[in-house]
Amino acid sequence: MTDTHTALTNPLPLAQALIRAPSVTPRDEGALDTLQAALTALGFACRRMPFGEVDNLYARLGTADPVFCFAGHTDVVPAGQEASWSAGPFAGEVHGEALIGRGAVDMKGAIAAFVAATARYLDGTKPKGSIAFLITGDEEGPAINGTKKMLQALEAQGERFSHCLVGEPTNRTVLGDMVKIGRRGSLNGVITVTGRQGHVAYPDRAINPIPALMEVLRALTARRLDEGNAHFQPSNLEVTSVDVGNPAHNVIPGEARAKFNIRFNTEQDGEALKSWIGGEIAKAQQGFTGIISADLTVTGDAFQTPEGPFTALLAEAILARTGISPELSTSGGTSDARFIKDYAPVAEFGLVGASMHQIDEQTPVADIKVLTEIYHDILTRYFEVFA
Amino acid sequence: MTDTHTALTNPLPLAQALIRAPSVTPRDEGALDTLQAALTALGFACRRMPFGEVDNLYARLGTADPVFCFAGHTDVVPAGQEASWSAGPFAGEVHGEALIGRGAVDMKGAIAAFVAATARYLDGTKPKGSIAFLITGDEEGPAINGTKKMLQALEAQGERFSHCLVGEPTNRTVLGDMVKIGRRGSLNGVITVTGRQGHVAYPDRAINPIPALMEVLRALTARRLDEGNAHFQPSNLEVTSVDVGNPAHNVIPGEARAKFNIRFNTEQDGEALKSWIGGEIAKAQQGFTGIISADLTVTGDAFQTPEGPFTALLAEAILARTGISPELSTSGGTSDARFIKDYAPVAEFGLVGASMHQIDEQTPVADIKVLTEIYHDILTRYFEVFA
Repeated sequence: MTDTHTALTNPLPLAQALIRAPSVTPRDEGALDTLQAALTALGFACRRMPFGEVDNLYARLGTADPVFCFAGHTDVVPAGQEASWSAGPFAGEVHGEALIGRGAVDMKGAIAAFVAATARYLDGTKPKGSIAFLITGDEEGPAINGTKKMLQALEAQGERFSHCLVGEPTNRTVLGDMVKIGRRGSLNGVITVTGRQGHVAYPDRAINPIPALMEVLRALTARRLDEGNAHFQPSNLEVTSVDVGNPAHNVIPGEARAKFNIRFNTEQDGEALKSWIGGEIAKAQQGFTGIISADLTVTGDAFQTPEGPFTALLAEAILARTGISPELSTSGGTSDARFIKDYAPVAEFGLVGASMHQIDEQTPVADIKVLTEIYHDILTRYFEVFA
Repeated sequence: MTDTHTALTNPLPLAQALIRAPSVTPRDEGALDTLQAALTALGFACRRMPFGEVDNLYARLGTADPVFCFAGHTDVVPAGQEASWSAGPFAGEVHGEALIGRGAVDMKGAIAAFVAATARYLDGTKPKGSIAFLITGDEEGPAINGTKKMLQALEAQGERFSHCLVGEPTNRTVLGDMVKIGRRGSLNGVITVTGRQGHVAYPDRAINPIPALMEVLRALTARRLDEGNAHFQPSNLEVTSVDVGNPAHNVIPGEARAKFNIRFNTEQDGEALKSWIGGEIAKAQQGFTGIISADLTVTGDAFQTPEGPFTALLAEAILARTGISPELSTSGGTSDARFIKDYAPVAEFGLVGASMHQIDEQTPVADIKVLTEIYHDILTRYFEVFA
């Protein structure tokens, strides 16, 4: 074991080095170089997979099956008001017990724990299979030139993954309280109603688009989509904006627009939801002389990784190191797991997310160390179970 | 009869002089000076009644009853794209048969006809009563410092009006087709719903204000206010804007706002409508944890001047000079008649309104001449009937 290798078993210096690269999407600022240097030192074959303005890193150690893949991102959201931070958002400083900085929990801390756990695992062990790192610089941004394109390209090159663990900050209040084994799907809709502008004193000469828009929104919000199921809360539609922008009290506007989002579970299907919405619009269009149109985008379908040996070993490793039996949850927003689930069973476990995307994003240094132990335990159990 | 007096029997030069004063509300630019000079030459006692930044003119000839009052405004709406006009909007030019310019029909042309008709009437006649001019510079603007305050001040000073004729462009397509004997009332409302912002993935932690707003709007638009009556079309509510301004698809907004306008007839009462709206808001507030508030303003109550000798003589004068029996209508938007109706029976008759507020506002010169004859005929009949 080299000194470099030994040094890499401590996650804190790598977490700090990663935070010091101000890699606000789509910029990299050296974050992937830092990670690649560490993985290269551990014997990984690394290659960059740039798409568009985004750089990405794929690394693999070993050629045999099974292939256990750590997945995550080095990009971060902007710091916001830097003056409001207790420490520089890109300084990577430890204050008291806490590592403060943008990305500390989402998710440079977890990536450092990936690497440190791997370094410890490789200390005297040769895995009966392969370990891979699938790291993107475009998760917080449009997520177009990241994980999705990497997986497409890797599949075309014959790369296969047996299981994947994403290091997103899944825990709500304490390390170990939640593993995510699925995510709801998400559908964004924009409905535009075009009428004919006119004076309120002469409504018969105008076509007010607002009542037609309200009728569509009423139909969409009136339906209870489902009751949820064992793993998911009920699907839910929220109207997020309605906009006309008519400053005049005496003018009937010519156009009205609404936006909505549906977070849906595995009882629903994105395409089926689009058909339903289209049908409601067609109904509202009947007898209406204006035009109702919709722009509907499914940004991710719902999925759930079945509970089995993979999810069980994750829960066992977490219980062993924290004393907590984690909830296997499908709550919360979307992540790149929505792309990975088409290629391999995927679960997510990382740090505590409470401060993510906020001023003074931070994690106890102790959490990064315990997370490293958990990941190490997961690697050990994984190759015992699946090799 | 002086030369000046004789000259004033021709309405065209005065109409042109008035148009040449670019009196866009609240500016006067000499318009009232021009009018006052003409009225003074005819023997009127004139006085200015400035309020705030607006100047107004009151003129009276005679002291006896009955008092017949011409009412109107010298202010105009902006010219818009001056380059789009066929002639300068403030040049007062006659092109072919038409007088072109901002205010040609709304309503400097009619004021010139008021004056010319009065000049002709006074040629050898002494009215058995009084003629008054109530002219404001704030009709197209907020209408706060004009007719309303003039009437309040004049009443306090003991001035009384027997009947009033407003020179707004009432005719739809041809001079003589419409006299207005009333106006609908108007109520403006703004409803604001305050909820609590949050992420769409966690709807239970947020309060979406949009459904509550839609519920209120649905209740307000569902009610058919009335069926109209002999003189009025049905009252009507139009939602004129809904605004949230939330750019993010994944955020439940914290506030939503809607604007609406009710044009209502004499079957309704502004205060009663406000009470009804307040009741609907109270209903929607029940069980809703956000806050619904409303800002309601009645800008004018509905009124109708009863048909009788006054409206009959107007119709007879119009028929005599045009061959058309005018419709006695209550259609269209508001005018300062909504203030005058509290002080005297009021009707409105002027030029053809088709080009008002538009590029190339214009009137046939012949219409101004016929309108002068009609006003002259009205003065003659008025003092025969009411003196």
